[in-house]
Amino acid sequence: MPEMQLPPLNVAIVGLGTVGSGVARVLLEHPERIARRCGRPVVLRCAVARDLSKQRDVALPPGVLTDDVRRVIDDPEIDVVVQLVGGIEPARTFMLQALQAGKDVVTANKALIYEHGGEVFRAARDTGRVVAFEASVCGGIPVIAAIGQSLAANQILSIEAILNGTSNFILTGMFSERVDYAEMIRRAQAAGYAEADPAMDVDGTDAAQKLVILTQLAFGTRASLSEFAVRGIDSLELADLLYADELGYAVKLLAVSKLAAGELEMHVQPTLIRKDRPLAGIGSVYNQVSIKGDVVGRTWFSGLGAGRNPTASAVLADLIDVAVGRAALTFDRLDVWGEHPPVPVKRAEDVEARYFLRFNVEDRPHVFADIADILGRNQISLASIIQHEAPELEERELQAEGGRRKAEDGTRTDPSLSQLSTLNSQLFPVVPVVVMTHRTSEGRFRGAERELQQLTTLRPPWVRMPVAD
Amino acid sequence: MPEMQLPPLNVAIVGLGTVGSGVARVLLEHPERIARRCGRPVVLRCAVARDLSKQRDVALPPGVLTDDVRRVIDDPEIDVVVQLVGGIEPARTFMLQALQAGKDVVTANKALIYEHGGEVFRAARDTGRVVAFEASVCGGIPVIAAIGQSLAANQILSIEAILNGTSNFILTGMFSERVDYAEMIRRAQAAGYAEADPAMDVDGTDAAQKLVILTQLAFGTRASLSEFAVRGIDSLELADLLYADELGYAVKLLAVSKLAAGELEMHVQPTLIRKDRPLAGIGSVYNQVSIKGDVVGRTWFSGLGAGRNPTASAVLADLIDVAVGRAALTFDRLDVWGEHPPVPVKRAEDVEARYFLRFNVEDRPHVFADIADILGRNQISLASIIQHEAPELEERELQAEGGRRKAEDGTRTDPSLSQLSTLNSQLFPVVPVVVMTHRTSEGRFRGAERELQQLTTLRPPWVRMPVAD
Repeated sequence: MPEMQLPPLNVAIVGLGTVGSGVARVLLEHPERIARRCGRPVVLRCAVARDLSKQRDVALPPGVLTDDVRRVIDDPEIDVVVQLVGGIEPARTFMLQALQAGKDVVTANKALIYEHGGEVFRAARDTGRVVAFEASVCGGIPVIAAIGQSLAANQILSIEAILNGTSNFILTGMFSERVDYAEMIRRAQAAGYAEADPAMDVDGTDAAQKLVILTQLAFGTRASLSEFAVRGIDSLELADLLYADELGYAVKLLAVSKLAAGELEMHVQPTLIRKDRPLAGIGSVYNQVSIKGDVVGRTWFSGLGAGRNPTASAVLADLIDVAVGRAALTFDRLDVWGEHPPVPVKRAEDVEARYFLRFNVEDRPHVFADIADILGRNQISLASIIQHEAPELEERELQAEGGRRKAEDGTRTDPSLSQLSTLNSQLFPVVPVVVMTHRTSEGRFRGAERELQQLTTLRPPWVRMPVAD
Repeated sequence: MPEMQLPPLNVAIVGLGTVGSGVARVLLEHPERIARRCGRPVVLRCAVARDLSKQRDVALPPGVLTDDVRRVIDDPEIDVVVQLVGGIEPARTFMLQALQAGKDVVTANKALIYEHGGEVFRAARDTGRVVAFEASVCGGIPVIAAIGQSLAANQILSIEAILNGTSNFILTGMFSERVDYAEMIRRAQAAGYAEADPAMDVDGTDAAQKLVILTQLAFGTRASLSEFAVRGIDSLELADLLYADELGYAVKLLAVSKLAAGELEMHVQPTLIRKDRPLAGIGSVYNQVSIKGDVVGRTWFSGLGAGRNPTASAVLADLIDVAVGRAALTFDRLDVWGEHPPVPVKRAEDVEARYFLRFNVEDRPHVFADIADILGRNQISLASIIQHEAPELEERELQAEGGRRKAEDGTRTDPSLSQLSTLNSQLFPVVPVVVMTHRTSEGRFRGAERELQQLTTLRPPWVRMPVAD
């Protein structure tokens, strides 16, 4: 081991939640390891928590814990602030104050980088400091380093990624356990993989924010969520996963940012992925980012995208980079929030794909012709139509039966399943239809869907998912 | 884009083969991109080739091409040497001379790093220069950066990897196309994925050398190929892949380096991997490295591990790192070929696994009892025995038939298949047996195999593959 020449690096952690206490623990339990990687000792000088009385599973040395963030900002000895307070405020203010006080910042706050990346990066450049944010996207997967450094010789051509572990856990579990969406939400909450309010995870927002950050790194383009299609998994039913499986596909919440003829195609949607593709095999809470470059070809990076330790690993990698001096060089060269002309985002309506559709129709003459006519007039042509009993029908009937029983008990049940159970009581039976379309655009669908809404013979649900190229 | 402050970086490429011309091409075709990533222009000043008359698909500017390596060594203006000559000499001498002349070195030469890593790293430290070698292992997959930087906060616990694209192409093709080993060797050669003499690829040597480099990075241990089990795919038959499939496994040439009770378990062998594990899904010439760290958990990195462009991408990433100044910092902190006590390599005989065995026996009384007795006395206990017709027998019979026809034509055929075709002509029919053992050690097998060799009732082949944990 070379001799240590640099003075100790003094670190403060602001926000001592799950990730913060994970970072503190590694620093305190493995000081020699971290010092060897950094070429100098790293000293945890201060840890700021909102609630000092809270029990924590990390034993901080005396005098380290405080609830006063000014102790960090005002201490000239502190070199690096590990900023792990979530949300926008007061996280943003802390970060700007830390930079203005001459401290480098390491953060895992994705929402803040998404919303105020421009501001905090400018502040860092103005003060000659660094913002390192590997942990803000995909936790333990070093995707920021991959795009910014390892693949730096490439023009990135596409990013296709599973960026939300909660959604992936739910989709994987629905399919493998043959349970419905509501049940998997409960299991995800019980396992600690979903918040009490999982809206941001399951409606695509979280994945879309991460995609925006990766897109800015890879393409220099600052997109906003309103510019591209963002759909979540919250309207999917088990039947969709079973039909997709029958057709040879897995369903994943896929985030895509792809160069096509000088424009960027972006979207976050439940997407059919051919089962033999690596993305289709990513289960449970794992994430995967597939990056295609013009020199390297296709690469895949996978691991745990969230959680205490994977995120702590990324935070600590950034901290080591700061200690060694690499972070400053990387930040200086990072071609992001920069001045050169960005690639424009393609209008959401113009993005094309093949689509999987699932809907129910009244089984009477001319109904399907009406639907096909609307689709056809909107230039959506059908590649194949599956109109038969749902796959694993027995199981679905059992579930519907269960749903009915629950409904009778007064417990909540999936409306689509109670619908199923009433099929036979209707004048015209309602039958499920699954259609695969030829390549068509989001915009044509939006047009068609307005017309389809007028048809009384078309029954809910109306599920539409693109097929990955 | 920030203003450029640094002077241009002058680069020489030594070795203008596939990878070298790939690197030259990106430098010449995308000078702005490379300059933006480096913060300064990169100038290809010199390219050394053995044969000046050879046609190349890259148009070098006048005066760049030379066959005189002294032009590189003696030119004080050249900052970085991209050393892409293969093999040991004269590559080693070039590299040492370049370092002594004060130049940083970027290389893709795995054999050289494997054999003389210690010497060239010492030379670089003595001269205050850098050796960057991302391209020497797994081409386009940034696994050196992952271990050395992105996962630096972790104690690496295990590396499990598919490191040889040729072997993976052959195994994947044998299974998916239902063809024998010899046929897939021909196809790999035709596709440019195997050399005329593919020995180093298919006998495990190439993967083992890469594993040694990764092991040194991750664990500080310098292992030699004689210290651990190294087996190739060259003795496998299609039947092995089909039986493994029937049991729920894919067969991959897996390289493993794993911490266990303060020792390192290392081996490179065809290995059964459960089909639902990501490594099992890596097809064609792709590589995958799965790294488990004590903080991050399990991660996977996949892509093209060889070939012109993926390797050029890694070489250029290193070149950019040198230009930016990151490479010097990284090299300084790289905890490799260092002084601290390394983790010892476990004796190959003591490494334990469950095993898949396939062999043929004469179908007469007591034969299997003899085999089971020898295994039992060597403390190898059997978990399950499959003695039935080979899977997809019809196909195998057709192939055997084909093989026999080819043999009659005087063309070469796989001896195992001609054996199959003669089964019925023997006094006692020979039947295939597949056995899965309980956990046992390499050493016990070596003992048992000496005894089994004495049995005349045991017929070739004798295939033994571990099952990945």
